Amino acid sequence: MKILVVGAHGTIGSGVINELADRHEMITAGRTSGDVTVDLTDVDSIRAMYQKVGKVDAVIACTGHSKWALVTDMTAEDYQFGLEDKLMGQVNLVLEGIDYLNDGGSFTLTSGVTDHVPVPMGSSASMVACALSGFVMSAATELPRGIRLNLVSPGVIEEAMDKYGAFFRGHQPVPASRAALGYAMSVESKQTGQTFRIV
Amino acid sequence: MKILVVGAHGTIGSGVINELADRHEMITAGRTSGDVTVDLTDVDSIRAMYQKVGKVDAVIACTGHSKWALVTDMTAEDYQFGLEDKLMGQVNLVLEGIDYLNDGGSFTLTSGVTDHVPVPMGSSASMVACALSGFVMSAATELPRGIRLNLVSPGVIEEAMDKYGAFFRGHQPVPASRAALGYAMSVESKQTGQTFRIV
Repeated sequence: MKILVVGAHGTIGSGVINELADRHEMITAGRTSGDVTVDLTDVDSIRAMYQKVGKVDAVIACTGHSKWALVTDMTAEDYQFGLEDKLMGQVNLVLEGIDYLNDGGSFTLTSGVTDHVPVPMGSSASMVACALSGFVMSAATELPRGIRLNLVSPGVIEEAMDKYGAFFRGHQPVPASRAALGYAMSVESKQTGQTFRIV
Repeated sequence: MKILVVGAHGTIGSGVINELADRHEMITAGRTSGDVTVDLTDVDSIRAMYQKVGKVDAVIACTGHSKWALVTDMTAEDYQFGLEDKLMGQVNLVLEGIDYLNDGGSFTLTSGVTDHVPVPMGSSASMVACALSGFVMSAATELPRGIRLNLVSPGVIEEAMDKYGAFFRGHQPVPASRAALGYAMSVESKQTGQTFRIV
């Protein structure tokens, strides 16, 4: 398969490349590096990426940020940041990519354990992760030509514990190589509308 | 208790007023009618409402809209409409209202059955309903002074079947009077961070 990975040089993305590169043709995308660059918060940039890449069999997004702060310190703009970046960035990757996916191809997006665990300063992360679950569950039922749509929800990534560990005390870290299995399951199965929780 | 109901003249709001008015002091709010008017998509309007109403024991939101269309017809702007109206409208009601809630008071927001059922043309409704679940689950853990935060997720409302019936074939409609019980449970219990599914 020809697989486009957005966020390919991030912690999870690197694991995904390691998992899939032996048996597939990988195209890497990132904000500043990769075979093609893309800014997921800019729909025109997403369109330009797809025009350059052309038809693919799978699109994987391992990307997106949200603001981490106590709810009492959060503003409407702070929530909007996560909605535009991690939520709509990935949703727009789907909306703009449908015509570039071969029949039976797949989109695989990324949320996280905050979809069912409330962690300190994580109200935006939970909002966005759950929003992605709802979008994937519903949008998957309406995609044409057998195109599939799934979500990977990994626990806190072991290689990112220096950055995120303080928000995830008590959580069992998940190696990126293990999280990567969720993307393989999505791409190389026939499942759709699913959230794969990797713990 | 002194209870502010936003969307008090809508289908669910009327049921909530009927359920609670006999035993509480009700303040009604709506976009164009009520004791006070408010536009939930405008943070300044929310602030002005709270300044006029003052301290309360409970805030209930029975309000919010999203765009209904097939995912293949939806644009980024269509999703943004639901995020600004039904999601952030209710979230901003919480953020701006914390200082106006008495100790142990409660916020009760509204989502819907699309939080776990994918209905036709409902990908935005599912996105927003799930986003509300995530926000409530997480933000409830960080509110000060014993302030509580819950969500009511009713099935399609019987009195609104003329408008929404086509999206909810196979669903058992829920009378507004029954949906109203979820708001009473939130306001008159000690629960927090919960989604009350009313089916």
